[in-house]
Amino acid sequence: MSDVLQKLWATIDDRRVFPRADSYTSSLLAAGLPRISQKVGEEAVETVVAALGEDDSRVVYEMADLVYHCMVLLAAKGLTWAEVESALEQRFK
Amino acid sequence: MSDVLQKLWATIDDRRVFPRADSYTSSLLAAGLPRISQKVGEEAVETVVAALGEDDSRVVYEMADLVYHCMVLLAAKGLTWAEVESALEQRFK
Amino acid sequence: MSDVLQKLWATIDDRRVFPRADSYTSSLLAAGLPRISQKVGEEAVETVVAALGEDDSRVVYEMADLVYHCMVLLAAKGLTWAEVESALEQRFK
Amino acid sequence: MSDVLQKLWATIDDRRVFPRADSYTSSLLAAGLPRISQKVGEEAVETVVAALGEDDSRVVYEMADLVYHCMVLLAAKGLTWAEVESALEQRFK
Repeated sequence: MSDVLQKLWATIDDRRVFPRADSYTSSLLAAGLPRISQKVGEEAVETVVAALGEDDSRVVYEMADLVYHCMVLLAAKGLTWAEVESALEQRFK
Repeated sequence: MSDVLQKLWATIDDRRVFPRADSYTSSLLAAGLPRISQKVGEEAVETVVAALGEDDSRVVYEMADLVYHCMVLLAAKGLTWAEVESALEQRFK
Repeated sequence: MSDVLQKLWATIDDRRVFPRADSYTSSLLAAGLPRISQKVGEEAVETVVAALGEDDSRVVYEMADLVYHCMVLLAAKGLTWAEVESALEQRFK
Repeated sequence: MSDVLQKLWATIDDRRVFPRADSYTSSLLAAGLPRISQKVGEEAVETVVAALGEDDSRVVYEMADLVYHCMVLLAAKGLTWAEVESALEQRFK
């Protein structure tokens, strides 16, 4: 896993185990699966809209948001980003 | 970048520069931005549906598909996965 | 309710009560809520992609598909199109 | 067209021709196609999440929102709800 993604995943998983009052990740995890799923869907829509109707920097920004919310969804389900990388490795090797 | 994601990105970017007749990635890139964007949206919907209504292995599988199609979208736009990681690093450091 | 939407809704609701082997609506209802929800999400993505990247006739076609799959979702939940119209009337009168 | 949908469509199309400072529809039309498309996608995601993870009243509420934003998208493209109904009639007669 990249340093960046590894650190981001570790932080998100840490917020799940040790919630913080001032953490967006903690508040999102507390909001529950329907809300987190909705955010994943919304960020994907924003990525699509950016790709078709806006500038490049917006695509990168919205896709980063999408990856972050995907990680929060994994944490909420008790899954890990390593499992996603493993699935990619299995399918594309 | 992780070995897995680094290899996957390198493969996708290679298919963009050197299209292969038997490559799904090449055919997707040839289909154009509207089609690739549609796939990103569809895989996100499948991830959401899996998270709310199906089993865990399905969530991992659909999210892996989503990450792959995001990378194809980046390649189609002339962007890179490294830019997405950089955006994540900026926002979550 | 318009004649067109009224007839379409009546047909969909009839397929729910009296499934037919040769009916797409019946097979969709039999596939269950996750599959029907996925179709609603996919048709919305196709509508968005058509609006931003394709021609006008495609927008109308995909939006018609979206309305149809929304009605199937309502039928699967035991809800009605009349309730959606009623909600619109309440909010926009 | 139903009285409800006919009135809603007439109001939306009127706001396009005669924008009002205090109208959400007018502000949405002024925001442009990417923003309106994004709203259509988001409302569809909320409908899917409601169908799979929340109560029935939420499904009706979010679907009504989706229909409204679809109509705004049509107005923004210079299309009409009558064309959507006509497409449904052609395909399901």
